[in-house]
Amino acid sequence: MKNLEKLEQLYEGKAKKVYSTNVEGVVIVDYKDDATAFNGEKKGTILGKGVINNKMSNYIMKQLEETGVPTHLVEELSDRETAVKKVSIVPLEVIVRNVAAGSFSKRMGVEEGKELLRPIIEFSYKCDELNDPFINDDYALALGLATEEEIETIKSYTRKVNETLKAFFLNIGIKLIDFKIEFGRLADGTIILADEISPDTCRLWDVNTNEKLDKDRFRRDLGGTEEAYQEVMRRIFGK
Amino acid sequence: MKNLEKLEQLYEGKAKKVYSTNVEGVVIVDYKDDATAFNGEKKGTILGKGVINNKMSNYIMKQLEETGVPTHLVEELSDRETAVKKVSIVPLEVIVRNVAAGSFSKRMGVEEGKELLRPIIEFSYKCDELNDPFINDDYALALGLATEEEIETIKSYTRKVNETLKAFFLNIGIKLIDFKIEFGRLADGTIILADEISPDTCRLWDVNTNEKLDKDRFRRDLGGTEEAYQEVMRRIFGK
Repeated sequence: MKNLEKLEQLYEGKAKKVYSTNVEGVVIVDYKDDATAFNGEKKGTILGKGVINNKMSNYIMKQLEETGVPTHLVEELSDRETAVKKVSIVPLEVIVRNVAAGSFSKRMGVEEGKELLRPIIEFSYKCDELNDPFINDDYALALGLATEEEIETIKSYTRKVNETLKAFFLNIGIKLIDFKIEFGRLADGTIILADEISPDTCRLWDVNTNEKLDKDRFRRDLGGTEEAYQEVMRRIFGK
Repeated sequence: MKNLEKLEQLYEGKAKKVYSTNVEGVVIVDYKDDATAFNGEKKGTILGKGVINNKMSNYIMKQLEETGVPTHLVEELSDRETAVKKVSIVPLEVIVRNVAAGSFSKRMGVEEGKELLRPIIEFSYKCDELNDPFINDDYALALGLATEEEIETIKSYTRKVNETLKAFFLNIGIKLIDFKIEFGRLADGTIILADEISPDTCRLWDVNTNEKLDKDRFRRDLGGTEEAYQEVMRRIFGK
Protein backbone atom coordinates (compact mmCIF):
# COMPACT_ATOMS: atom_id res chain seq x y z
CA MET A 1 0.00 0.00 0.00
CA LYS A 2 1.49 3.30 -1.09
CA ASN A 3 1.81 6.08 1.46
CA LEU A 4 0.39 4.07 4.34
CA GLU A 5 1.35 5.90 7.53
CA LYS A 6 1.46 4.34 10.99
CA LEU A 7 -0.22 6.78 13.34
CA GLU A 8 -1.10 6.29 17.01
CA GLN A 9 -1.26 3.09 19.03
CA LEU A 10 -4.88 2.02 19.47
CA TYR A 11 -4.37 -1.05 21.60
CA GLU A 12 -1.72 -3.22 23.15
CA GLY A 13 -2.63 -6.87 23.70
CA LYS A 14 -0.68 -9.79 25.08
CA ALA A 15 1.19 -10.52 21.85
CA LYS A 16 0.39 -7.61 19.52
CA LYS A 17 0.09 -3.87 19.24
CA VAL A 18 -2.40 -2.27 16.88
CA TYR A 19 -1.91 1.17 15.29
CA SER A 20 -4.23 3.46 13.40
CA THR A 21 -3.23 4.61 9.91
CA ASN A 22 -4.05 7.40 7.50
CA VAL A 23 -6.17 5.00 5.43
CA GLU A 24 -9.83 4.53 6.31
CA GLY A 25 -10.60 0.98 7.48
CA VAL A 26 -6.96 -0.11 7.71
CA VAL A 27 -4.86 -0.63 10.85
CA ILE A 28 -1.36 -1.99 11.39
CA VAL A 29 -0.64 -5.00 13.60
CA ASP A 30 2.79 -5.18 15.19
CA TYR A 31 3.71 -8.64 16.51
CA LYS A 32 5.66 -8.77 19.79
CA ASP A 33 7.88 -11.48 21.28
CA ASP A 34 5.94 -11.33 24.56
CA ALA A 35 4.22 -14.53 25.62
CA THR A 36 1.59 -15.06 28.29
CA ALA A 37 -0.33 -18.12 29.44
CA PHE A 38 -3.13 -19.01 31.84
CA ASN A 39 -4.98 -15.74 31.25
CA GLY A 40 -1.86 -13.64 31.86
CA GLU A 41 -0.72 -15.41 35.05
CA LYS A 42 2.48 -16.61 33.38
CA LYS A 43 4.58 -14.13 31.43
CA GLY A 44 7.73 -14.42 29.35
CA THR A 45 9.45 -13.80 26.03
CA ILE A 46 9.89 -16.11 23.08
CA LEU A 47 12.73 -14.61 21.05
CA GLY A 48 11.86 -14.14 17.39
CA LYS A 49 8.23 -15.18 17.90
CA GLY A 50 6.78 -11.92 16.56
CA VAL A 51 8.52 -12.33 13.21
CA ILE A 52 7.52 -15.96 12.88
CA ASN A 53 3.87 -15.41 13.83
CA ASN A 54 3.60 -12.46 11.47
CA LYS A 55 5.03 -14.21 8.42
CA MET A 56 3.38 -17.54 9.10
CA SER A 57 -0.07 -15.99 9.68
CA ASN A 58 0.11 -13.98 6.49
CA TYR A 59 1.23 -16.96 4.46
CA ILE A 60 -1.68 -19.02 5.77
CA MET A 61 -4.23 -16.21 5.39
CA LYS A 62 -3.43 -16.07 1.67
CA GLN A 63 -4.19 -19.77 1.35
CA LEU A 64 -7.43 -19.40 3.30
CA GLU A 65 -8.55 -16.54 1.04
CA GLU A 66 -8.15 -18.92 -1.91
CA THR A 67 -10.54 -21.41 -0.29
CA GLY A 68 -13.19 -18.71 0.12
CA VAL A 69 -12.57 -17.66 3.72
CA PRO A 70 -12.33 -13.86 3.83
CA THR A 71 -9.56 -12.60 6.12
CA HIS A 72 -8.35 -9.27 7.46
CA LEU A 73 -5.03 -9.46 5.58
CA VAL A 74 -4.17 -6.42 3.47
CA GLU A 75 -0.39 -6.48 3.12
CA GLU A 76 2.75 -7.49 4.99
CA LEU A 77 4.76 -4.34 5.70
CA SER A 78 7.83 -5.63 7.49
CA ASP A 79 9.09 -8.59 9.52
CA ARG A 80 6.74 -7.76 12.36
CA GLU A 81 4.16 -5.44 10.82
CA THR A 82 1.11 -6.15 8.69
CA ALA A 83 -1.66 -3.91 7.41
CA VAL A 84 -5.03 -5.47 8.14
CA LYS A 85 -8.66 -4.50 7.75
CA LYS A 86 -10.14 -2.77 10.76
CA VAL A 87 -12.89 -4.83 12.40
CA SER A 88 -14.91 -4.87 15.56
CA ILE A 89 -14.15 -8.26 17.08
CA VAL A 90 -16.99 -10.74 17.64
CA PRO A 91 -16.52 -11.53 21.36
CA LEU A 92 -16.14 -15.27 20.77
CA GLU A 93 -12.98 -17.33 20.88
CA VAL A 94 -13.60 -20.06 18.35
CA ILE A 95 -11.76 -23.24 19.27
CA VAL A 96 -11.44 -26.30 17.03
CA ARG A 97 -10.31 -29.65 18.42
CA ASN A 98 -9.27 -32.59 16.26
CA VAL A 99 -7.40 -34.47 18.97
CA ALA A 100 -7.91 -34.34 22.76
CA ALA A 101 -5.42 -32.10 24.58
CA GLY A 102 -5.05 -29.38 27.19
CA SER A 103 -8.10 -28.18 29.12
CA PHE A 104 -10.37 -30.47 27.11
CA SER A 105 -8.49 -33.57 28.24
CA LYS A 106 -8.55 -32.44 31.84
CA ARG A 107 -12.24 -31.47 31.93
CA MET A 108 -13.47 -34.48 29.99
CA GLY A 109 -11.13 -37.15 31.31
CA VAL A 110 -9.91 -38.00 27.79
CA GLU A 111 -6.22 -38.84 27.36
CA GLU A 112 -4.08 -36.27 25.52
CA GLY A 113 -3.49 -37.43 21.97
CA LYS A 114 -6.75 -39.34 21.55
CA GLU A 115 -8.28 -38.65 18.13
CA LEU A 116 -11.89 -37.42 18.44
CA LEU A 117 -14.70 -39.15 16.52
CA ARG A 118 -15.19 -35.83 14.70
CA PRO A 119 -13.83 -32.30 15.07
CA ILE A 120 -15.31 -30.15 17.83
CA ILE A 121 -16.05 -26.47 17.36
CA GLU A 122 -16.56 -24.62 20.61
CA PHE A 123 -16.95 -21.01 21.71
CA SER A 124 -15.58 -19.13 24.66
CA TYR A 125 -16.97 -15.75 25.60
CA LYS A 126 -14.04 -13.31 25.20
CA CYS A 127 -14.01 -11.67 28.62
CA ASP A 128 -10.81 -11.50 30.69
CA GLU A 129 -12.62 -10.75 33.98
CA LEU A 130 -14.70 -13.92 33.59
CA ASN A 131 -11.70 -15.96 32.40
CA ASP A 132 -13.13 -16.46 28.89
CA PRO A 133 -15.84 -18.94 29.94
CA PHE A 134 -16.78 -21.81 27.66
CA ILE A 135 -20.30 -21.26 26.27
CA ASN A 136 -22.58 -22.83 23.67
CA ASP A 137 -24.47 -21.32 20.72
CA ASP A 138 -27.56 -20.59 22.82
CA TYR A 139 -25.47 -18.60 25.30
CA ALA A 140 -24.08 -16.48 22.46
CA LEU A 141 -27.62 -15.80 21.23
CA ALA A 142 -29.20 -15.28 24.65
CA LEU A 143 -26.46 -12.84 25.67
CA GLY A 144 -26.53 -11.02 22.32
CA LEU A 145 -22.89 -11.79 21.47
CA ALA A 146 -23.69 -12.74 17.87
CA THR A 147 -26.71 -13.36 15.66
CA GLU A 148 -27.85 -16.77 14.47
CA GLU A 149 -26.66 -15.94 10.95
CA GLU A 150 -23.25 -14.79 12.20
CA ILE A 151 -22.82 -18.01 14.15
CA GLU A 152 -23.67 -20.07 11.09
CA THR A 153 -21.17 -18.08 9.00
CA ILE A 154 -18.46 -18.37 11.64
CA LYS A 155 -18.95 -22.13 11.95
CA SER A 156 -18.94 -22.67 8.22
CA TYR A 157 -15.71 -20.64 7.79
CA THR A 158 -14.20 -22.42 10.78
CA ARG A 159 -14.83 -25.85 9.29
CA LYS A 160 -13.11 -24.70 6.07
CA VAL A 161 -10.18 -23.26 8.02
CA ASN A 162 -9.79 -26.57 9.85
CA GLU A 163 -9.78 -28.63 6.66
CA THR A 164 -7.28 -26.29 4.98
CA LEU A 165 -4.98 -26.09 8.00
CA LYS A 166 -5.03 -29.83 8.65
CA ALA A 167 -3.89 -30.52 5.08
CA PHE A 168 -1.39 -27.65 5.11
CA PHE A 169 0.33 -28.85 8.29
CA LEU A 170 0.18 -32.54 7.44
CA ASN A 171 2.07 -31.71 4.26
CA ILE A 172 4.98 -30.49 6.39
CA GLY A 173 4.84 -33.39 8.85
CA ILE A 174 2.71 -31.70 11.51
CA LYS A 175 -0.53 -32.87 13.13
CA LEU A 176 -3.01 -30.07 13.87
CA ILE A 177 -4.31 -30.98 17.35
CA ASP A 178 -6.44 -27.89 18.03
CA PHE A 179 -6.44 -24.14 17.42
CA LYS A 180 -8.14 -20.89 18.32
CA ILE A 181 -9.34 -18.20 15.91
CA GLU A 182 -11.39 -15.04 16.15
CA PHE A 183 -13.64 -13.28 13.71
CA GLY A 184 -14.45 -9.62 13.23
CA ARG A 185 -17.18 -7.52 11.67
CA LEU A 186 -16.33 -4.97 8.97
CA ALA A 187 -18.20 -1.67 9.09
CA ASP A 188 -20.93 -3.19 6.86
CA GLY A 189 -21.28 -6.24 9.11
CA THR A 190 -19.39 -8.69 6.91
CA ILE A 191 -17.75 -11.42 8.97
CA ILE A 192 -14.05 -12.04 8.29
CA LEU A 193 -11.28 -14.04 9.95
CA ALA A 194 -9.35 -11.53 12.02
CA ASP A 195 -6.68 -13.30 14.02
CA GLU A 196 -3.21 -14.77 13.77
CA ILE A 197 -2.63 -18.45 13.01
CA SER A 198 0.62 -19.45 14.63
CA PRO A 199 2.23 -21.75 17.22
CA ASP A 200 0.77 -19.30 19.77
CA THR A 201 -2.76 -20.23 18.75
CA CYS A 202 -2.43 -23.80 17.39
CA ARG A 203 -1.33 -27.03 19.03
CA LEU A 204 1.08 -28.56 16.50
CA TRP A 205 2.67 -31.97 17.03
CA ASP A 206 5.29 -33.62 14.89
CA VAL A 207 3.45 -36.34 13.00
CA ASN A 208 6.06 -39.03 13.75
CA THR A 209 7.40 -38.21 17.22
CA ASN A 210 4.40 -36.27 18.68
CA GLU A 211 6.93 -33.63 19.74
CA LYS A 212 5.14 -30.39 20.61
CA LEU A 213 5.99 -27.55 18.22
CA ASP A 214 3.86 -24.87 19.85
CA LYS A 215 3.26 -22.63 22.84
CA ASP A 216 2.68 -25.62 25.15
CA ARG A 217 6.52 -25.75 25.39
CA PHE A 218 6.31 -22.33 27.08
CA ARG A 219 3.10 -23.03 29.06
CA ARG A 220 4.48 -26.28 30.46
CA ASP A 221 8.15 -25.27 30.79
CA LEU A 222 9.30 -27.96 28.37
CA GLY A 223 12.24 -25.93 27.08
CA GLY A 224 13.21 -25.46 23.43
CA THR A 225 10.35 -23.06 22.75
CA GLU A 226 12.28 -20.79 20.35
CA GLU A 227 13.62 -23.84 18.50
CA ALA A 228 10.09 -25.25 18.11
CA TYR A 229 8.77 -22.00 16.58
CA GLN A 230 11.79 -21.88 14.26
CA GLU A 231 11.25 -25.49 13.25
CA VAL A 232 7.66 -24.76 12.17
CA MET A 233 8.92 -21.72 10.25
CA ARG A 234 11.63 -23.81 8.60
CA ARG A 235 9.16 -26.46 7.51
CA ILE A 236 6.84 -23.86 5.98
CA PHE A 237 9.38 -21.67 4.26
CA GLY A 238 12.23 -24.16 3.86
CA LYS A 239 14.71 -21.96 5.68
CA MET B 1 -51.06 -52.29 36.45
CA LYS B 2 -52.43 -55.56 37.74
CA ASN B 3 -50.09 -57.95 39.52
CA LEU B 4 -47.04 -55.70 39.28
CA GLU B 5 -44.51 -56.99 41.78
CA LYS B 6 -41.61 -54.99 43.18
CA LEU B 7 -38.54 -57.22 43.04
CA GLU B 8 -34.91 -56.31 43.78
CA GLN B 9 -33.31 -52.88 44.10
CA LEU B 10 -31.39 -52.07 40.92
CA TYR B 11 -29.98 -48.72 41.88
CA GLU B 12 -29.98 -46.14 44.64
CA GLY B 13 -29.38 -42.54 43.57
CA LYS B 14 -29.28 -39.31 45.50
CA ALA B 15 -33.06 -38.88 45.67
CA LYS B 16 -34.52 -42.14 44.32
CA LYS B 17 -34.32 -45.88 44.44
CA VAL B 18 -35.17 -47.99 41.42
CA TYR B 19 -36.52 -51.57 41.63
CA SER B 20 -36.96 -54.28 39.06
CA THR B 21 -40.42 -55.79 38.56
CA ASN B 22 -41.96 -58.94 37.17
CA VAL B 23 -43.05 -57.02 34.03
CA GLU B 24 -40.66 -56.75 31.10
CA GLY B 25 -39.56 -53.14 30.47
CA VAL B 26 -41.11 -51.74 33.65
CA VAL B 27 -39.29 -50.62 36.82
CA ILE B 28 -40.49 -48.92 39.99
CA VAL B 29 -39.11 -45.59 41.17
CA ASP B 30 -39.26 -44.91 44.91
CA TYR B 31 -38.78 -41.24 45.83
CA LYS B 32 -36.76 -40.50 48.99
CA ASP B 33 -36.66 -37.45 51.24
CA ASP B 34 -32.85 -37.32 50.98
CA ALA B 35 -31.42 -34.18 49.48
CA THR B 36 -27.90 -33.51 48.24
CA ALA B 37 -26.27 -30.51 46.61
CA PHE B 38 -22.95 -29.53 45.05
CA ASN B 39 -22.38 -33.00 43.61
CA GLY B 40 -23.06 -34.71 46.92
CA GLU B 41 -20.89 -32.46 49.11
CA LYS B 42 -23.90 -31.22 51.05
CA LYS B 43 -26.37 -33.76 52.41
CA GLY B 44 -29.67 -33.46 54.25
CA THR B 45 -33.33 -34.39 54.42
CA ILE B 46 -36.34 -32.45 53.20
CA LEU B 47 -39.27 -33.98 55.04
CA GLY B 48 -42.13 -35.00 52.72
CA LYS B 49 -40.13 -34.21 49.56
CA GLY B 50 -40.40 -37.74 48.16
CA VAL B 51 -44.19 -37.64 48.18
CA ILE B 52 -44.35 -34.16 46.66
CA ASN B 53 -41.82 -34.90 43.91
CA ASN B 54 -43.54 -38.15 43.01
CA LYS B 55 -47.04 -36.71 42.75
CA MET B 56 -45.98 -33.47 41.12
CA SER B 57 -43.80 -35.21 38.51
CA ASN B 58 -46.52 -37.61 37.55
CA TYR B 59 -49.11 -34.84 37.25
CA ILE B 60 -46.79 -32.87 34.97
CA MET B 61 -45.77 -35.91 32.91
CA LYS B 62 -49.42 -36.48 32.03
CA GLN B 63 -49.67 -32.93 30.71
CA LEU B 64 -46.45 -33.29 28.73
CA GLU B 65 -47.71 -36.51 27.13
CA GLU B 66 -50.71 -34.52 25.89
CA THR B 67 -48.40 -32.06 24.11
CA GLY B 68 -46.63 -34.90 22.30
CA VAL B 69 -43.63 -35.40 24.57
CA PRO B 70 -43.31 -39.11 25.35
CA THR B 71 -42.41 -39.83 28.97
CA HIS B 72 -41.48 -42.82 31.07
CA LEU B 73 -44.66 -42.61 33.19
CA VAL B 74 -46.66 -45.83 33.43
CA GLU B 75 -48.67 -45.51 36.63
CA GLU B 76 -48.51 -44.00 40.09
CA LEU B 77 -48.51 -46.85 42.62
CA SER B 78 -48.41 -45.08 45.97
CA ASP B 79 -47.42 -41.78 47.58
CA ARG B 80 -43.76 -42.41 46.83
CA GLU B 81 -43.77 -45.12 44.18
CA THR B 82 -44.36 -44.97 40.45
CA ALA B 83 -44.08 -47.59 37.73
CA VAL B 84 -42.04 -46.22 34.83
CA LYS B 85 -40.67 -47.54 31.56
CA LYS B 86 -37.19 -48.96 31.81
CA VAL B 87 -34.67 -46.93 29.80
CA SER B 88 -30.97 -46.63 29.37
CA ILE B 89 -30.24 -43.03 30.27
CA VAL B 90 -28.67 -40.73 27.66
CA PRO B 91 -25.65 -39.42 29.60
CA LEU B 92 -26.65 -35.78 29.19
CA GLU B 93 -28.14 -33.47 31.77
CA VAL B 94 -30.34 -31.15 29.74
CA ILE B 95 -30.61 -27.74 31.36
CA VAL B 96 -32.99 -25.00 30.26
CA ARG B 97 -32.54 -21.42 31.40
CA ASN B 98 -35.18 -18.71 31.00
CA VAL B 99 -33.77 -16.34 33.60
CA ALA B 100 -30.16 -16.01 34.81
CA ALA B 101 -29.48 -17.77 38.14
CA GLY B 102 -27.08 -20.07 39.96
CA SER B 103 -23.90 -21.25 38.26
CA PHE B 104 -24.86 -19.45 35.04
CA SER B 105 -24.96 -16.09 36.81
CA LYS B 106 -21.63 -16.73 38.48
CA ARG B 107 -19.81 -17.98 35.36
CA MET B 108 -21.24 -15.37 33.00
CA GLY B 109 -21.35 -12.36 35.31
CA VAL B 110 -25.09 -11.90 34.76
CA GLU B 111 -27.20 -10.81 37.73
CA GLU B 112 -29.59 -13.43 39.17
CA GLY B 113 -33.10 -12.68 37.99
CA LYS B 114 -32.17 -11.14 34.65
CA GLU B 115 -34.47 -12.40 31.88
CA LEU B 116 -32.46 -13.88 28.98
CA LEU B 117 -33.05 -12.66 25.42
CA ARG B 118 -34.17 -16.20 24.62
CA PRO B 119 -34.16 -19.53 26.47
CA ILE B 120 -30.87 -21.40 26.64
CA ILE B 121 -30.65 -25.17 26.29
CA GLU B 122 -27.37 -26.61 27.49
CA PHE B 123 -25.92 -30.06 28.09
CA SER B 124 -23.76 -31.40 30.87
CA TYR B 125 -22.02 -34.73 30.50
CA LYS B 126 -23.48 -36.96 33.26
CA CYS B 127 -20.32 -38.11 35.00
CA ASP B 128 -19.90 -37.74 38.77
CA GLU B 129 -16.10 -38.18 38.69
CA LEU B 130 -15.77 -35.28 36.25
CA ASN B 131 -18.35 -33.18 38.14
CA ASP B 132 -20.88 -33.26 35.25
CA PRO B 133 -18.93 -30.92 32.97
CA PHE B 134 -20.77 -28.44 30.75
CA ILE B 135 -20.37 -29.47 27.09
CA ASN B 136 -21.79 -28.47 23.71
CA ASP B 137 -23.44 -30.51 20.94
CA ASP B 138 -20.12 -31.20 19.21
CA TYR B 139 -18.69 -32.66 22.42
CA ALA B 140 -21.67 -35.02 22.71
CA LEU B 141 -21.11 -36.15 19.12
CA ALA B 142 -17.31 -36.33 19.28
CA LEU B 143 -17.44 -38.38 22.48
CA GLY B 144 -20.23 -40.63 21.19
CA LEU B 145 -22.70 -39.69 23.96
CA ALA B 146 -25.62 -39.28 21.53
CA THR B 147 -26.28 -39.21 17.81
CA GLU B 148 -27.10 -36.09 15.82
CA GLU B 149 -30.69 -37.29 15.45
CA GLU B 150 -31.02 -37.98 19.17
CA ILE B 151 -29.74 -34.50 19.99
CA GLU B 152 -32.26 -32.95 17.61
CA THR B 153 -35.08 -34.99 19.18
CA ILE B 154 -33.96 -34.12 22.71
CA LYS B 155 -33.79 -30.41 21.90
CA SER B 156 -37.15 -30.38 20.21
CA TYR B 157 -38.83 -32.16 23.17
CA THR B 158 -36.99 -29.90 25.58
CA ARG B 159 -38.32 -26.75 23.90
CA LYS B 160 -41.85 -28.17 24.18
CA VAL B 161 -41.32 -29.09 27.83
CA ASN B 162 -40.15 -25.55 28.55
CA GLU B 163 -43.15 -23.94 26.89
CA THR B 164 -45.58 -26.27 28.69
CA LEU B 165 -43.90 -25.87 32.08
CA LYS B 166 -43.63 -22.08 31.82
CA ALA B 167 -47.36 -21.79 31.18
CA PHE B 168 -48.22 -24.41 33.80
CA PHE B 169 -46.27 -22.66 36.56
CA LEU B 170 -47.27 -19.14 35.55
CA ASN B 171 -50.87 -20.23 35.95
CA ILE B 172 -50.17 -20.91 39.63
CA GLY B 173 -48.17 -17.73 40.20
CA ILE B 174 -44.71 -19.22 39.70
CA LYS B 175 -41.91 -18.11 37.37
CA LEU B 176 -39.90 -20.98 35.87
CA ILE B 177 -36.31 -19.74 36.11
CA ASP B 178 -34.49 -22.86 34.93
CA PHE B 179 -34.72 -26.65 35.17
CA LYS B 180 -32.88 -29.89 34.47
CA ILE B 181 -34.26 -32.97 32.71
CA GLU B 182 -32.87 -36.22 31.41
CA PHE B 183 -33.88 -38.47 28.57
CA GLY B 184 -33.63 -42.21 28.12
CA ARG B 185 -33.61 -44.73 25.30
CA LEU B 186 -36.19 -47.52 25.22
CA ALA B 187 -34.97 -50.93 24.05
CA ASP B 188 -35.85 -49.97 20.44
CA GLY B 189 -33.93 -46.68 20.70
CA THR B 190 -36.96 -44.41 21.10
CA ILE B 191 -36.08 -41.28 23.10
CA ILE B 192 -38.42 -40.46 26.00
CA LEU B 193 -38.36 -38.04 28.92
CA ALA B 194 -37.17 -40.07 31.90
CA ASP B 195 -36.74 -37.82 34.89
CA GLU B 196 -38.64 -36.13 37.67
CA ILE B 197 -39.89 -32.56 37.38
CA SER B 198 -40.00 -31.07 40.85
CA PRO B 199 -38.59 -28.32 43.09
CA ASP B 200 -35.46 -30.52 43.24
CA THR B 201 -34.87 -30.03 39.54
CA CYS B 202 -36.52 -26.67 38.76
CA ARG B 203 -35.83 -23.16 40.02
CA LEU B 204 -39.28 -21.79 40.86
CA TRP B 205 -39.81 -18.21 42.03
CA ASP B 206 -43.04 -16.64 43.21
CA VAL B 207 -44.11 -14.38 40.38
CA ASN B 208 -44.84 -11.42 42.68
CA THR B 209 -42.29 -11.66 45.48
CA ASN B 210 -39.49 -13.62 43.72
CA GLU B 211 -39.46 -15.87 46.79
CA LYS B 212 -37.60 -19.09 46.00
CA LEU B 213 -39.87 -22.14 46.10
CA ASP B 214 -37.24 -24.75 45.28
CA LYS B 215 -34.13 -26.61 46.35
CA ASP B 216 -32.06 -23.41 46.44
CA ARG B 217 -33.57 -22.93 49.92
CA PHE B 218 -31.71 -26.09 50.95
CA ARG B 219 -28.56 -25.40 48.87
CA ARG B 220 -28.19 -21.89 50.26
CA ASP B 221 -29.46 -22.54 53.81
CA LEU B 222 -32.35 -20.10 53.42
CA GLY B 223 -34.65 -22.05 55.74
CA GLY B 224 -38.30 -22.91 55.06
CA THR B 225 -37.43 -25.62 52.55
CA GLU B 226 -40.23 -28.02 53.52
CA GLU B 227 -42.73 -25.15 53.49
CA ALA B 228 -41.62 -24.10 50.00
CA TYR B 229 -42.12 -27.60 48.60
CA GLN B 230 -45.53 -27.80 50.29
CA GLU B 231 -46.49 -24.41 48.87
CA VAL B 232 -45.77 -25.57 45.32
CA MET B 233 -47.79 -28.73 46.01
CA ARG B 234 -50.67 -26.65 47.40
CA ARG B 235 -50.75 -24.38 44.38
CA ILE B 236 -50.82 -27.36 42.00
CA PHE B 237 -53.35 -29.54 43.79
CA GLY B 238 -55.16 -26.89 45.82
CA LYS B 239 -54.47 -28.63 49.11
